[in-house]
Parts: sequence; structure tokens; C-alpha cells
Amino acid sequence: MAIKEGLRPGGRSARVQESIHSAVRELLEEQERSTLTVPQIAVRAGVTPSTIYRRWGDLSALLADVALERMRPDGEPATTGSLRGDLRAWAEQYLDEMSSEPGRNMMRDVQCSATPGYCVSILSGQLQIILDRHRHSEAALPSLDRLLNMTVAPTVFRILFAAEPLDVQELHELIDIALRS
Amino acid sequence: MAIKEGLRPGGRSARVQESIHSAVRELLEEQERSTLTVPQIAVRAGVTPSTIYRRWGDLSALLADVALERMRPDGEPATTGSLRGDLRAWAEQYLDEMSSEPGRNMMRDVQCSATPGYCVSILSGQLQIILDRHRHSEAALPSLDRLLNMTVAPTVFRILFAAEPLDVQELHELIDIALRS
Repeated sequence: MAIKEGLRPGGRSARVQESIHSAVRELLEEQERSTLTVPQIAVRAGVTPSTIYRRWGDLSALLADVALERMRPDGEPATTGSLRGDLRAWAEQYLDEMSSEPGRNMMRDVQCSATPGYCVSILSGQLQIILDRHRHSEAALPSLDRLLNMTVAPTVFRILFAAEPLDVQELHELIDIALRS
Repeated sequence: MAIKEGLRPGGRSARVQESIHSAVRELLEEQERSTLTVPQIAVRAGVTPSTIYRRWGDLSALLADVALERMRPDGEPATTGSLRGDLRAWAEQYLDEMSSEPGRNMMRDVQCSATPGYCVSILSGQLQIILDRHRHSEAALPSLDRLLNMTVAPTVFRILFAAEPLDVQELHELIDIALRS
């Protein structure tokens, strides 16, 4: 998961990128996102603004990249003993994290990324781990697409476009529907 | 649907707003959205930039307002004779419009609105018209939330975050699942 194409891990380029990413993360904790500027990030990271413009083009592409990096999960989804339980635990945590203010901002930033599809591949990776755990169970497993469409999509849609996020009860119902073959 | 709270229809305030909205729509057809500025819009609309800042605060709030205005449907959903047919026709048109470049931009802009929930209320209004048409049919009708979660949400999620939008076949399957009671 941690491989960046075109970057030699630990090389000069990777170190510069990491210092710029950290600068963004630090500054986002100190100030409003709308007041962030490229020159400010450059000062904090100890690089010139043109280093940033050369690599990312503009601020929104850099923010998107940082957001994608932060979306990478810290570890494997929790194990509860059942497929339904694992999906509930994972989806509840995702709903929780994404309906926070930093979660919403991440989702908005990611949309400005050159590769927003990477977002779905991260989520698919997590869901696939859960499915693999239960591949020997007797019940038919739902497809990845079905899980994305019927549980992740409503979670994200409601956070971004509705007055209220999904409640946990609704989320459980959607998981139940996705599990019905 | 066309009532704006706090604006007397046809009054001075409404006319100013309409000229600013038209200026934005015109300019968006002529140039890249990322190059649009408030002073430019002000010149085209024949107002001062401070008129725009006073009413909307910043460019993203104005773009969000214009996007919401454009999201208002031109008319009622098409009538096909069946609930499934009406939902398919409406959802296919929605998928088509939203996966276009202007559609994607609209969805991004709306998220910066002070009232993104208005987006769901427009969509709910359209779906409710379809449900009302079929309220005397024998089959149980799906709830509005179910239709939003299971058909609109995956359409939007895939456009914004995945490499590929839903295909029509997947959309039909999701409608079928939503219609199963």
C-alpha cells in the first residue's frame, strides 16, 4: 500500500515530499484551511514555493495528495467473528471519521485529486480483507461493488449533500440489504 | 420551488441577484472555472465587487448558489407507465447529466454551499412526484430515503470518487433492489 510510483522510498525526492506533507498537516491543525497558502507551506517545509508548484501544480492538488495519504487506514479492519459484525464495525468507524470536520474536508480535497479513483481502491482494499476472512463461510459473499454502492456510497453522499448523516440504524439496515443474496 | 427566502420576487434585490447569476453562467461557458474571479463577474453583471462579497461572502459561496439554482429540474420526471420505468428514466438522465464535466463541477460547487441539504430536497421532490404517481399501485412503495441511499448515492459517489461512473446495467440492478420490499 505504501509504495509511491516514481519515488525511491527514502530517497531525496521522498524526503522532500514527506516534509511538505508534514508541513501541510501541521498548518491545517493551526489555522483555517481557506487561509493556507503555498508560500506558507514552503517556509514551514524548508523548500521554495516553486518546488511545490513544480510537483503539484497548485494548492488543491497538494491538499488532495495529503488527503489521500491520510485516508490510508492505520491497520486492518477489526475482527468480530462474523461477516456482518466486521462490516458493521468497519462501516461505523468510517461513518464516524468521515462525518467529522477533518473527514469532510478530506473528502472535498480528494475530489480535486488527479486520481480520485485511488480513494475507492483504498476502501476496496479494506473491504476485501473483510471478505477474505469469511471466504470459507457457507453464505454467499456480496461483491465488493455491492458493498461500496450500498454502504459506502450512502455514507459519503449523506455527509456531503444532506442535512444529516446516516444514523447507525440506517447503516445497519443497508448492510443487511447488501448481505441478502 | 422558485421562491427565494428574503427576496421579493422581481424586486431590485432579485434583479441584481439574477444579473450576477447570469454573469457567472455566461463566464463559465467562456472560460475555465479555476480562472473565474469576483471582479470579473462584477464587471459582467454591472455591479461592484463589494455587492457580491456583501451578499455571498466569497466566490465559492456564489458558485454554490448558482450550482443549486441550476440543479433545479426543468420539469417533472418523464412518465413511462410503471414505477420501475419512471425510476429508470429519471435515474438514467440524472447519471447522464451528473457525469458530464458541468455536472461534476456543479456537485463540487454545491458542497461549498451553506445549505448542501437543499440538494437532497430537490432530488427528493423529483422522486416524490414519481412515488405519488404510483401510490395506488398494489406493490408496496419504497421509501424516499431508500431510493436516495440505494440509487442516487451510488450514482454520485462513483462519479466523484471512482475511476468509472456506474453503468446503466448496475443502475438498473440497484433500482430493482430498492424496489424489493
